[in-house]
This record gives sequence, structure tokens and C-alpha cells, in this order.
Amino acid sequence: MLTIFQRHIIQKTSRSSFPYSTMSSSTAKTSASSIETSFKPAPKLVASDLNPHALNAKYAVRGKIPTKAEQLRQELASKSHSLPFNKIINANIGNPQQLDQKPLTFYREILAILQYPELLKKDAASEIFPADIIDHSKTLLSHIGSLGAYSHSQGVAHVRKSVAEFISKRDGYEASADDIFLTAGASTAVSYLLGLLSLGPKTGFLIPIPQYPLYTATLALNNSTALPYYLNESDNWSVDSDELVKVIENAKAKGVSPRCLVLINPGNPTGAILKKEAIADLLTVAAKYGLVVIADEVYQENVYKGEFVSVKKVLKELQSLDKQGIYSNVQLASLHSTSKGISGECGQRGGYMELVNFDDSVRAQVMKLASISLCPPVSGQALVELMVNPPKKGDPSYELYIKERTFIFNSLKERSRLLYAAFNEMEGVSCQEPEGAMYCFPNIELSQKVYEAAEKVGMEPDEFYCSELLDNTGICAVPGSGFGQVDGTWHVRTTFLAPGTEWIGAWRDFHAKFVAKYNK
Amino acid sequence: MLTIFQRHIIQKTSRSSFPYSTMSSSTAKTSASSIETSFKPAPKLVASDLNPHALNAKYAVRGKIPTKAEQLRQELASKSHSLPFNKIINANIGNPQQLDQKPLTFYREILAILQYPELLKKDAASEIFPADIIDHSKTLLSHIGSLGAYSHSQGVAHVRKSVAEFISKRDGYEASADDIFLTAGASTAVSYLLGLLSLGPKTGFLIPIPQYPLYTATLALNNSTALPYYLNESDNWSVDSDELVKVIENAKAKGVSPRCLVLINPGNPTGAILKKEAIADLLTVAAKYGLVVIADEVYQENVYKGEFVSVKKVLKELQSLDKQGIYSNVQLASLHSTSKGISGECGQRGGYMELVNFDDSVRAQVMKLASISLCPPVSGQALVELMVNPPKKGDPSYELYIKERTFIFNSLKERSRLLYAAFNEMEGVSCQEPEGAMYCFPNIELSQKVYEAAEKVGMEPDEFYCSELLDNTGICAVPGSGFGQVDGTWHVRTTFLAPGTEWIGAWRDFHAKFVAKYNK
Repeated sequence: MLTIFQRHIIQKTSRSSFPYSTMSSSTAKTSASSIETSFKPAPKLVASDLNPHALNAKYAVRGKIPTKAEQLRQELASKSHSLPFNKIINANIGNPQQLDQKPLTFYREILAILQYPELLKKDAASEIFPADIIDHSKTLLSHIGSLGAYSHSQGVAHVRKSVAEFISKRDGYEASADDIFLTAGASTAVSYLLGLLSLGPKTGFLIPIPQYPLYTATLALNNSTALPYYLNESDNWSVDSDELVKVIENAKAKGVSPRCLVLINPGNPTGAILKKEAIADLLTVAAKYGLVVIADEVYQENVYKGEFVSVKKVLKELQSLDKQGIYSNVQLASLHSTSKGISGECGQRGGYMELVNFDDSVRAQVMKLASISLCPPVSGQALVELMVNPPKKGDPSYELYIKERTFIFNSLKERSRLLYAAFNEMEGVSCQEPEGAMYCFPNIELSQKVYEAAEKVGMEPDEFYCSELLDNTGICAVPGSGFGQVDGTWHVRTTFLAPGTEWIGAWRDFHAKFVAKYNK
Repeated sequence: MLTIFQRHIIQKTSRSSFPYSTMSSSTAKTSASSIETSFKPAPKLVASDLNPHALNAKYAVRGKIPTKAEQLRQELASKSHSLPFNKIINANIGNPQQLDQKPLTFYREILAILQYPELLKKDAASEIFPADIIDHSKTLLSHIGSLGAYSHSQGVAHVRKSVAEFISKRDGYEASADDIFLTAGASTAVSYLLGLLSLGPKTGFLIPIPQYPLYTATLALNNSTALPYYLNESDNWSVDSDELVKVIENAKAKGVSPRCLVLINPGNPTGAILKKEAIADLLTVAAKYGLVVIADEVYQENVYKGEFVSVKKVLKELQSLDKQGIYSNVQLASLHSTSKGISGECGQRGGYMELVNFDDSVRAQVMKLASISLCPPVSGQALVELMVNPPKKGDPSYELYIKERTFIFNSLKERSRLLYAAFNEMEGVSCQEPEGAMYCFPNIELSQKVYEAAEKVGMEPDEFYCSELLDNTGICAVPGSGFGQVDGTWHVRTTFLAPGTEWIGAWRDFHAKFVAKYNK
């Protein structure tokens, strides 16, 4: 018998009220009847007892300012609030359907049928759903089975095939379904890849600055080293290979071995689009230094100026011209998602990654990680299929689909213009022209007075600006310090998703008052 | 300018065919026009270059045998195959809707409306959907908004409130929506918790053996130490607190600090249900040693014999009687999922965890990890709501709901009986009576001849048995070595989800031949 279980808790309590009174007759070898009650209980854990790498991870998009916005939203719900605004404008996160954006009818009709295939048996089905929707749904059901069954951990084969066809068509170069892994948004892909490539603090990951903080957060979790390479703000956040090589050589000199290069194109938070030539340069650096390239291309549909060219396409072009074989070992993981683009289906958690040129043994490890998570949400997988395989000209659903897409695209583009113009009219603010994605990242001059006011409340100056903006207008934007910026410069990331233009006016008014108070 | 980019790739190729020929006139600071082509490309990564902790992780449920089953399934698709069976029986994974099980109509009707709320505006809506389905959907839509929007990272507040009410009712003790985190299945919860609690190899996690391999796989990823405590097979896989305390003291003597105790109840792969008294004992050990308790209770609806009592309920009972405060610091994370139970909606990735008695600073870290993943699939969150808030007596959907549930439950129970009986009739096989979950875990005697045959093909003896079973019958089951077992004993985990009884007969026949060949 146990020695630590000595006294009987039942003896300490009223027998009749004790729910375990039957226990004393239990035949179990040990039971509550032998519980010692004299020991001093061990203390509860507090944060400092936890994994220090997890503690180090920061994620500003849902950090302090958004948390405060949530509290203010609850305050607004009470009628007696005294806030100087009536709603929260969530400009902190690329979440289109939280705001104005309607889902595409084509997607949702099919997802409804997949959820409830019995709909097809109802008499009214052919009145409710266009014929191509019914056909498309039947095909998908035949491949997927039930949305409620785990799929293959790599994703439904039929969907992976469609993704490969989509990529082949987009780039003009073959893609294989075997190289496609369906994921829950792009975040899962980042987690698998950075997790596998991390060997501790001596492993370096080249991360653009400013960056989407998922990257630094995931590296912190994996106790690996982020090697920031700064984008050139004055040249619309272009990448400078000089800078990249310097960062690599500096890291190596310090004993950190660079093994991965992250590109975000179109850029988050910058809204900039990489030129083909710049991508070619980056791939050359990757080839020379053996860097696995992660191309975060989730905004590939959000292009308002210029052209999106995939890293895969540039790699294939280089390889096709490359008689010396210098590009033959470049390993590329390209990520896409149903959360952004025109779909904006963030909550559905659909996405994929293409692993180009990876060794089979490495791919098997990615597969194992995917297996441990069982499978990505199957409805999200279906959505990936719909994203890459939309209605074709002549299909009954085609016109509405195009109309809805065009409306969404034009709204995004127009709002990006308005916001861009507004920032450049504000005193001490300069903003690069957003070419893609869903964000502006204006540079905001902040004075010594702001520094002091921020320090008093324990904030960074840009955090202070965002906090004041929120308190005065209800607009929730994220300080640039959450994404990284050149020391001494200050930025704010805002989406251009919020409907209407009133909030832009409110920001303008706030800024004028802020400048009057702090910058004069 | 860069010094490493010296030569011009264009000079090496035909100018006219080169897609980058326009680049030479590019104004970009660096461009492909300055790419050096003389360097030796760095080699590709192979598995041994990857994170050794990730390499160490094993996940048998989708391991070698299931992978082989997938290949055989493809072979079956070709008409000229010469396999001695016509289909693969996937008994390797608790995936009910891959097999016979139909989704509950109540769930799917509402999920269809949530995906496509326009359905409610169609004239036919009231003919297709019962009134309570329409009402329930409208309520959910008013709280969730679009399934395509990221929700709060902790999950939709309304759903968390429903979960808290469900728990309060189940246990007779208050639960709070603030303590509920919605998750993508239960796996995400395990990943967050083990990740946060891991401080490297000196941190120990008490894991029941046999276990669901998600636990050891996640610990391997986190480079922490699994402290196996063996369940007592001869007493239907009961937990012995003696054993637990021994494991703890041994670990401490070796410098490993135990910080977490994992319970799986009902058991996977054992199918056993923990008694209240046993849970009380385990909680006492947790109180004394300061172990965070993770209660994996995803099979709480799958109870065929005896009664499921939640760890939360036992903890609350103990606390209510506990005048010395010995249970006051016990921290409990209880996990549930829409994947198992009667729902069986694995592919929808819904789940929740309740964090009982955690310090706010720890909960904030869980919240941060949830934020980094943005949010669980919103349709999965809706499904959690439906699981905990089903039709009530008198609702139009009630009768069908009960009928479907009863059918599923009875089928599971009946198949568990049949399989249990079949195993106990097989020579050299003994099987504990499955009380819950979806699995049998029979003990199979294997002879020296099997050991030798297995060694020849580089397999464990139980893996060899499963491999032969698969090759001869198409039944895919998982070797006990993937779950852990007492040295020298051999087991197989099989679900009892596959429809029909033919496959059970095929297994019986196979086993007789296997015994004749190897055990005589």
C-alpha cells in the first residue's frame, strides 16, 4: 500500500454529506479512503514557471492594443458609457468578414451542400442551387466523403491535384499533387517548417523587417534566432541583396548558421510587391548559402498595382536557364491561404503549401508533423478546392461570381487609395503606396514629448500613439514595434478593410490634435 | 554593389530566349543581371539536418502499417490486383464517418445554414428545415457573424458560455466561460499545454501506458521527458497510485522534476473507464506533487458499461470536503472534442478545454499561443455549441436527433461486444472488456517463431502480426508498440467502428492460420 496516503478524508467530514461515503467499501486497491490530508499542497504554477521560449514569443496583432479594444467594445455595449465614439473599428487584423466583406456565394452554396448533402435530395434543391453548384458539390462529395471524417493528413488527394493544376496554370511550370500539403491557414505551414528547421539558437532565419509577427513568435517558441533583414522603406520597402548578404555574413561570423530565408510577397505589413529581379537575387543568395526559402504568398490575389510573380515561377525560370546547376538545390516552400485574397475566409482555416525540390526524407518529416495534428479542417480543404477551381465562363454561377469578386477587389483597391492619400496629407506622416495585401504601414514622426508621455505609461512611443488613437476614435491599429522597424522610426499598421470613410476622417482629426498637443 | 554577384547569367545564355532579358535595363539597385554563376550550390537538406526533437517524435496511428494500407488501397483500385481481399478495413483510427457512421442531421442542417445564411431567405427554407433549426441557426449567426471571420482566439464567447453551462449541468459544479478555450479538436489543447509546461529533459510528464501516442509525440517535439506509469491490464487497465508515486519518486531521484499528470478517461487505447475513487487518488497525488492534471475526456459520451465521472467533478467534490486546503492548488485542464462521442465529426476539428484553477498569468500564456494560431475553425466552434446544446424535448428536431444518436450508440456498443467476444475466443488472445471509447486492445501471445520472422523483416513482433493481418485480410490495425505495453507483452489496437461482422470473421480465420503457422 501507499505510504503517503495515510489518513482518511472521510473521517474529517460529516459522513452523511460526503459523496464518497460509498468509497470506503470500494474494492479498489487504493481509494480516496486512504487519502492523506496532512501534507502541504504544492503551489500553483505562475508564468515564470513556464517554458521560457514560449514566454519570449510576442504576437502584436492580437496584443495589448487589440485587447484594450475588446474591453472598450464591452464598455460600448453598456448604454451609460462616456466614450467619445460609438464603435470599435478593427483595423488591427486582416479579417475582412468581421467587417464589411460578404463571402462569395459560390463558396458558400457548395460548403452548405457539403455540410448537409441531404439538401440535394430536397425537391427545392434545383430551385435553390444553380446546376454547376450541384455538379461541383457532387464531385467534391465523391472525393471527400463526409466533412466529418479525418482526411489523409496531407489533405484530400483530389484537392491537392486541383491545387497542383492551379499552380501549373499560374506559373507555366508543372506542379505535382505530391508536393502539396493542405494546411489550416498558412500559419500551420509556418509552424511545421520553422519547427523542423530549428536546431536552437545557432540556427538563423532571415526574416524581413518589418514582418508579420507570426515568424518571430514561432522562432521564439522554437528557441531559434531571427536574422532580421531590413526592407528599404524609401524605395517602397524593396529588398536589398547587399543587406541580405551582410546579415548572413555577420551571423556566420557570430557562429549562427543561416538556414532559411522568409519572403512575404505581397508584403505584410508593408503592402509592397517584390519585383521578379529582386526575387531572382534572393534565390541566388539562397542557392549560394543553402537557405530553405519560405515564400509567404497569401496575398497573391491582393494586387492593386504592378504584378505578382510567384517565387516558384522565378525559381523555375532560373533553373531552366541555369546550365551550371547553381539553382538545382534550392528548396522552396510556398504558402497560400483561403483567409486573404478575395476569399477572405479567415475563420474557415484553409490553406496549402507547396514543397518544391525538398528531399523525400525531409518531406516525410513534414508529413509526420501533419499526421500528429491528424488533418486540416476538411471544410477548409474544400474551400481551397473552390478557391483554385472557380466557376468557368458559361457556368451558371460564373457571372455572379465575377460580379462579387470585382466588387470586393474594387472596394479594397479604392479604400487603399483613400487611406494612402489621407496618410500623406497628415502632418509628419509619410506612407508608401500600397501595391498589394490589405495594409498601410505609414511612418509617423513622433516628438520628444511623445517619448516622454509614452515612457510615463510604460509604452513604446508608437504604442502610445495607437493607444491614444484607440481611446479617442475607437480605431484599433497596431504599433509598428510589433512588426519591427528601423530604430528611431515609428509606424502603425492598419488594414484598409473597414467600411466607409468616416473613420479615416476621424483618424485625420485625431492626428491633427495629437500633433498640436505633442509635436508643437 | 554586391561583391559576390559578379557575373551575368544573361551572358551565359541566349539573350533572346532569356525571360529576364529586360532585367538588364532594370533600375533596381541589384538585379539578376549581376548574379554570379560560378559558385558551388549548397547541398539540399536531408532529414538528419532537421530538428532532432522532431525526428524523435513517433505517431503510430498514422505510421508504417496505415501507410502500407494506403498503398494497398491504391493497388485494389487497379482491376488486375491479386490481393486476397477486396477492401481495406480502416480499424487503425477512430474516424467513424470514414466508415459507416452518418452525421447527426441536427448538426449538419445548422452547419449548412451557417455556411450559407441566404438559405433562410429562400421560400423553401421552412419546408426544408424544422423551426427549431432555423431559430438555433439565427441565434448562432447573431453571435458568430460569418464563419469566414476570425473569431476571438479563445473562441466565440457565446459558445464558451454554452460549454460552461454544459459542464455545470454535467458535474453539478459551476463552470465559467472565461475558463473555456475552444480548440481545433483536442490535439491543439495538448500541444499548447505540453508546450508551455516543457522546460526540457528535466521536466517529466506522467503518461499512462498504454497511451494515445499524441502525448509522447508532443513531448518528443518539446524535448521533455515522458514518465510512463503502467496501467494494470489484469484489472481492466486500472490505475495504481502506488505505481504512480513510485514513478514520481524514481524520476525525482534521477533529477527529473514531474510537473504534469495525463489521464485518458475513457481510455485510449484501453477502452477502460476510471472509477471515481481512482480519480480521487490521482488528484491527491497531483495535489501533493504539484502536478498539472490534463484530463483527456474526449470519449466521455462513449460509455457502454459503468459511468463516466469527470475529473473536474471529482476535484470539486474533494475541494468541497477539503478543510485543510490540500486540493486548493490543483490545476486541471479538461479536454473534450466533437471528433469522438456520438458526433464523430473528426474532420470538422472542433473541441474545447476547460482550465480549472490556473493562475491568470499562465492562462494569459495559453491565450497568447491561441492568438498565434489566430483562431480555431469557426465551423468547428459552432459544432461544439451544437454538441453541448442539442434539441430539447418538444423541439421539432428532438425525435430524429434521439433516434439517430440511439442508433449510433447501440451500433458502437454492439460492435464492441462482438469484437470483444471474438478476441476472447481466439487462441492465445485475451481482451479486457471495453467499457468506453472506440477501441479494443487485445493481448496477443506471440511465439519465438514470430520474433524470428519479425526480426528478419526489421519489425517488432506485434508490428509483424499487424502487417500479416493487413496483407491477408485488408484489416488495418495498429501494433501495441505504438501505444506502449509491458515488455514482452504484445497487443493490437483496433477500433470497433468498421461496419458489418465479416471482417471480424476474417480476423478470426487469419488468426487461426497465423497461430498454426507460428505458434505451434
